[in-house]
Amino acid sequence: MSERLWQDDVSIEEATAVATRLTDALIERLLAVPPGLEARVYDAMRYSALAPGKRLRPLLVLASSTLFGVSRRSALQVAAAIEMVHAYSLIHDDLPAMDNSDLRRGRPTCHKQFDEATAILAGDGLLTMASGVLADPDTHGDAAVRAELIGTLAAAAGPAGMVGGQMIDLIAETTKLDIGAITRLQRMKTGEIIAFACVAGALLARASEPAYRALHAYAHDLGLAFQIVDDLLDAEGSEATVGKPVGQDQAAGKATFVSILGLERAREQATLLGEQAKRHLDFFDDKAELLREMADFIVARRS
Amino acid sequence: MSERLWQDDVSIEEATAVATRLTDALIERLLAVPPGLEARVYDAMRYSALAPGKRLRPLLVLASSTLFGVSRRSALQVAAAIEMVHAYSLIHDDLPAMDNSDLRRGRPTCHKQFDEATAILAGDGLLTMASGVLADPDTHGDAAVRAELIGTLAAAAGPAGMVGGQMIDLIAETTKLDIGAITRLQRMKTGEIIAFACVAGALLARASEPAYRALHAYAHDLGLAFQIVDDLLDAEGSEATVGKPVGQDQAAGKATFVSILGLERAREQATLLGEQAKRHLDFFDDKAELLREMADFIVARRS
Repeated sequence: MSERLWQDDVSIEEATAVATRLTDALIERLLAVPPGLEARVYDAMRYSALAPGKRLRPLLVLASSTLFGVSRRSALQVAAAIEMVHAYSLIHDDLPAMDNSDLRRGRPTCHKQFDEATAILAGDGLLTMASGVLADPDTHGDAAVRAELIGTLAAAAGPAGMVGGQMIDLIAETTKLDIGAITRLQRMKTGEIIAFACVAGALLARASEPAYRALHAYAHDLGLAFQIVDDLLDAEGSEATVGKPVGQDQAAGKATFVSILGLERAREQATLLGEQAKRHLDFFDDKAELLREMADFIVARRS
Repeated sequence: MSERLWQDDVSIEEATAVATRLTDALIERLLAVPPGLEARVYDAMRYSALAPGKRLRPLLVLASSTLFGVSRRSALQVAAAIEMVHAYSLIHDDLPAMDNSDLRRGRPTCHKQFDEATAILAGDGLLTMASGVLADPDTHGDAAVRAELIGTLAAAAGPAGMVGGQMIDLIAETTKLDIGAITRLQRMKTGEIIAFACVAGALLARASEPAYRALHAYAHDLGLAFQIVDDLLDAEGSEATVGKPVGQDQAAGKATFVSILGLERAREQATLLGEQAKRHLDFFDDKAELLREMADFIVARRS
């Protein structure tokens, strides 16, 4: 990196703090509020994109970028773009017509804090700006890299990825899905964007195909582990620790990893996937310590 | 063009027919319905993106591309992307929390035909795919051109453009705007995307700065004329000809070009802007006949 983000032996807590601080600072700058009446939609975009959160996706972008010595500026642009896409997806998912959630991480959701129309527009604005951020020469000197990032993110976030997964998730409220269908749904809904975050460093560095594949395989297992833990938290956690209402899947009679596998096997499965994810990192020897710790962290998280 | 779209003396009706047929064929291909449960969101995307319509933006892309001999494939990719963005904006604008429209061009709106959640996702999916289409090497061999198209479209469609204009439009329901504020709102809400369509040919051809500026100035006047005529149709047209409920602005007590200028002066202003738009095309001599006709067409349109 032109300027290093952290030492090789950085702890996951320190790395998270750095990723959050730097990504938020960039998002702050990108979403500077203009003087006109459109300020309201910027306020709503900022409310959600800068809300307290894990910043898991930016951290994955920065961690994968560190593997290849990608410049700090490039990595942060991608981190900001992916967090904008994440924030947009949460705003739209929380809408009355979708999950109808009033609370997210202990705060009113965007449409509760503002109103429904503003929330729809804030989501649209964040999604639109994400591609603008990636297209900016600040992201990479080589336009081919920028175009590849945009194409890869669009595939991960679009109807064959996140949007399609969300569609299936809505259908799952009235249709019983089997474990294969749920695995596919979750891979589309959250896995593809997590995979984009993990391979972002390889794309920015134009890394070798084996390096790209190792990160992609890591992300695949990591994303699934993440989702199983999400289901476990929904089934077992309390609203106070998780920061949003729990028990919703069960109340909706929705099939989840937990409802199909049971608590015990779901927990085993998450642990197994975490271990499997880490093994894909053997390719990078001891350079990928942070990504290894993140796999442990994701399996062990309580919120 | 590698393969010409039309003869130099093509009529606006013929050109519209060609633009519609070729753009729709490409959108059909890009939105091929997959076998999984996510098919539902593809169905909704297709329902809206392939709905009957003027295909004004694709036609502007193709017409501006013809000026510079841009390849047919490149022009059509941009035409499809911009029509996807247009379709997404209509889907979200029609939602109950926004304009709450049940009818669009004589057909049920997307959330009426499907449901609200599916409509939100269909809009999100179209917006996401638009950047993916532009990022595709099919759009242009030079990635720098693709990245510039994406950055320019994101700026036109985002919170400083279309999304911001829509935000102000919502605020205008409860706040009285003056003519300056309304002009700015309309430039943001519809003008910026029309401007993108008009300069797309210049971007694809890496045309000279004066050529770009001439098209941008043409688009600026054209977009405003377009909006004034929209207001006139809302004030004077019948639901049968316009294809959607009319008189809504007046019923909502909303300031429009017509409510401020009156019918007579609004009509004069639209005509004046149309003439002014055409004068910017002098730069292209007699090569821009179709764009000139489009200005006349937009001012004279009845739906």
